Amino acid sequence: MRADAQDNRKRVLAAAEEIFGRTPGASTEDVAKLAGVGIGTVFRHFPTKTELLEAVLTVRLERLRDRATELAGEADAGAAFFGFFSQVVAEASTKLAIAEALLASGSAAGASARNAGAGMREAFGTLLSRAQQSDAVRDDADFPEVYALLIGASRGATAANLEPLVRDKMLEILYDGLRPDRS
Amino acid sequence: MRADAQDNRKRVLAAAEEIFGRTPGASTEDVAKLAGVGIGTVFRHFPTKTELLEAVLTVRLERLRDRATELAGEADAGAAFFGFFSQVVAEASTKLAIAEALLASGSAAGASARNAGAGMREAFGTLLSRAQQSDAVRDDADFPEVYALLIGASRGATAANLEPLVRDKMLEILYDGLRPDRS
Repeated sequence: MRADAQDNRKRVLAAAEEIFGRTPGASTEDVAKLAGVGIGTVFRHFPTKTELLEAVLTVRLERLRDRATELAGEADAGAAFFGFFSQVVAEASTKLAIAEALLASGSAAGASARNAGAGMREAFGTLLSRAQQSDAVRDDADFPEVYALLIGASRGATAANLEPLVRDKMLEILYDGLRPDRS
Repeated sequence: MRADAQDNRKRVLAAAEEIFGRTPGASTEDVAKLAGVGIGTVFRHFPTKTELLEAVLTVRLERLRDRATELAGEADAGAAFFGFFSQVVAEASTKLAIAEALLASGSAAGASARNAGAGMREAFGTLLSRAQQSDAVRDDADFPEVYALLIGASRGATAANLEPLVRDKMLEILYDGLRPDRS
């Protein structure tokens, strides 16, 4: 792909992420407008809205995976784990809106989004193990229930349309449950 | 309504709850078959599938509200609060399936389901206050974040399709966070 074509692709993706995160039912025309490109350019890179949504979701999951991988190298394993958890929950509403728009378009997430999701879960598992080794998270919490709490907190915050303050109080309760016994 | 008509209505509702909880896309014919009534009987009571779904959702919410109200009279306020929380999460997958089928039918929950939902939330708030007064739940947890945790645990358990054992471990972590500081 030529450099200007790559540049256009990135602009379309960034515009799509912004628009679909707010308004899942937005049109491809809206995306082209915000990206400052013609509708033909959008369709050249993403022949269908489904392909565009899929690409946006993949980018978001890859970004989270890269963030988790980066945090796994930090010295404070507890701060890395809880920081990543909070970031996922804070960004959940736009990610869920995109995933739901994809579903509404009649398509489940394809291979690229699924791969990125698997990479994200694996990196989150590493963050959990490290936090447990450094006594920041209780030992008896296994990955499936901790991951279910991550999904649950994300969906709970989105469904209840929580203000940031309430969301933080919700997470504080959850994190107290995840910490080793304080007694 | 005559006694046999009331009886038929109840049978249709029970059949609809069972079928839509498993298979949100099921047809009104499937409901009639399981209820052992003719399709005309279903349509006489519920002219559209949307009305049937709405009635099923209302029945479920009213049942939860009644259960919470009943539990608010029990001596062990902590057991009442956590028991109700666990029941809501355990039953969430079928309730969410019904709510999503209603949404997919192009309708949001109407007044009767909304009223039943408000009654359920109010009764849950009473359970929370009583549990806090008896030191079973931390004082600094306000209703909005505790309710968000209830919704989140329900959606997390459903989305991750959790086995009962993992679901219980998830709730154990959550409940430890909700209890007063153990130190």
